[in-house]
Amino acid sequence: MAGIVECVPNISEGRRLDVVDGLASVITATPGVRLLDRTSDPDHNRSVFTFAGDPAAVERAALALIDATYRVVDMRGHTGAHPRLGAVDVVPFVPLAGVTMADCIAIAHRVGEAVAAKHGVPVFYYAMAATRPERVRLPDIRKPEYEGLAHLLETTHVPDAGPRTLHPAAGAIVIGARPPLIAFNIELDTTDLKLAQRIAKEIRESSGGLPAVQAKGFMLSDPPRAQVSMNLLDHTVTSLPQVWHEVETRSRAAGVAILRGELIGLIPLDAALAAAGDALKLDGFAADRVIEARFLE
Amino acid sequence: MAGIVECVPNISEGRRLDVVDGLASVITATPGVRLLDRTSDPDHNRSVFTFAGDPAAVERAALALIDATYRVVDMRGHTGAHPRLGAVDVVPFVPLAGVTMADCIAIAHRVGEAVAAKHGVPVFYYAMAATRPERVRLPDIRKPEYEGLAHLLETTHVPDAGPRTLHPAAGAIVIGARPPLIAFNIELDTTDLKLAQRIAKEIRESSGGLPAVQAKGFMLSDPPRAQVSMNLLDHTVTSLPQVWHEVETRSRAAGVAILRGELIGLIPLDAALAAAGDALKLDGFAADRVIEARFLE
Repeated sequence: MAGIVECVPNISEGRRLDVVDGLASVITATPGVRLLDRTSDPDHNRSVFTFAGDPAAVERAALALIDATYRVVDMRGHTGAHPRLGAVDVVPFVPLAGVTMADCIAIAHRVGEAVAAKHGVPVFYYAMAATRPERVRLPDIRKPEYEGLAHLLETTHVPDAGPRTLHPAAGAIVIGARPPLIAFNIELDTTDLKLAQRIAKEIRESSGGLPAVQAKGFMLSDPPRAQVSMNLLDHTVTSLPQVWHEVETRSRAAGVAILRGELIGLIPLDAALAAAGDALKLDGFAADRVIEARFLE
Repeated sequence: MAGIVECVPNISEGRRLDVVDGLASVITATPGVRLLDRTSDPDHNRSVFTFAGDPAAVERAALALIDATYRVVDMRGHTGAHPRLGAVDVVPFVPLAGVTMADCIAIAHRVGEAVAAKHGVPVFYYAMAATRPERVRLPDIRKPEYEGLAHLLETTHVPDAGPRTLHPAAGAIVIGARPPLIAFNIELDTTDLKLAQRIAKEIRESSGGLPAVQAKGFMLSDPPRAQVSMNLLDHTVTSLPQVWHEVETRSRAAGVAILRGELIGLIPLDAALAAAGDALKLDGFAADRVIEARFLE
């Protein structure tokens, strides 16, 4: 195997679960690919698939999923709380093992060219696959949404591939490459929501904290506890043990202990090993020291 | 792949490195197997190979290595500081992933039967593959050494397979199954050897400490520092974070900080993940939450 790429397509259908089942089966039917996770949200009217496998197989599965989605999802009349530009809204490719970011950027651009040619859908490249600075952040691209995009395609939203006219049923599509995202929450032994909110504000990048970290304070209900909820957008920039220590130091200074951590979904091996290496004060601990990981080369 | 078994054969040849090279190539020539590590010690006149792969391939490679060693190593006149019973001295099989200890015991017994039948060499089963309590510990089996074994084979050392007569050139062989062993050292910020020795004594099983832990205090020379050197014989019984906390608590009580940890060789994935899960206070964190590990199933 030449390496592992992950793909996390976001589809604008979260209510007709039989339709979503059909799309999931397109992924599982592709040899060399594993469907690792799927979630559907009826309020957002949106489904997210997480699948991974060898690069060529993941590229094939992504194209097959886009083809299949365009046959069954029509943006005309689509409603939902989540911002979106198209039937297949966002398709990020993530390098996991034995694959570079450049490989994933190349996959993103090939898939974009193919979708533009085959379906006549406007394509935007984002994140590491972006072709200009104002296309890096997904919210900036998605701001006009499906309803407002049509008249911007000739001016501010000239697509990176495909026609300058919106596809009525499919809308537009955003394709990119990014590092693996880690959703990590820390539960504090307190009901003091303000403490969690203050810690979140201090550590997140947007208010001058740690780079590639998003954070927010939440109140859990049963039992009532304050929680710092985080996204690590690039764990090689800011790691799990770094955010742990930052939260712990601030919490401890307020006289509050950490009760538990919580990982949402799956994490990459090197993110877990960074936490192990930090805890055991090991120099340069990485996958080459883990027996099973040697079989992934 | 049906899982991964590790094999760590100890060969009574550590001086003629061209001969050892030839033996290593027998392992690397076996499809489905990877040679992960090899060391040769001229004082011990002994070499240790670490290889792993799918169970059937590892079994084939072990048999091929034994055949090849018996062609080139002769115990008559063998000298070396390390205790040994035969040309192929010890062959442990270790379950790493997707394989049970029972599988490795079965492999050990099949290899033993094959070696006894093909080469007429007395075979002893040890550790988890032992057939009686006094055969569990390797030092107990190996105590008479090659030179003293011949006249014990009819009495205290009746072999588990093969003849009751020593093979003049090959000697005897000890084959077994055991959990992965982790060699882990902790360096203290002190030159107080007695502190390291006291901590080692308190935490090791033989003096009433943690189960499946061997520990000893050492003095490192450059720079001079006291070190607690440990073997975790079964990290599912006593884990890396457990020994870390036990050493840290005692060291801290003596006013001494931990400088660094050191892992010798490779460790199993779940041993590393236990350290990550402990550090981030994650409930039940294991390989099923690690993306790459999902591809080892």
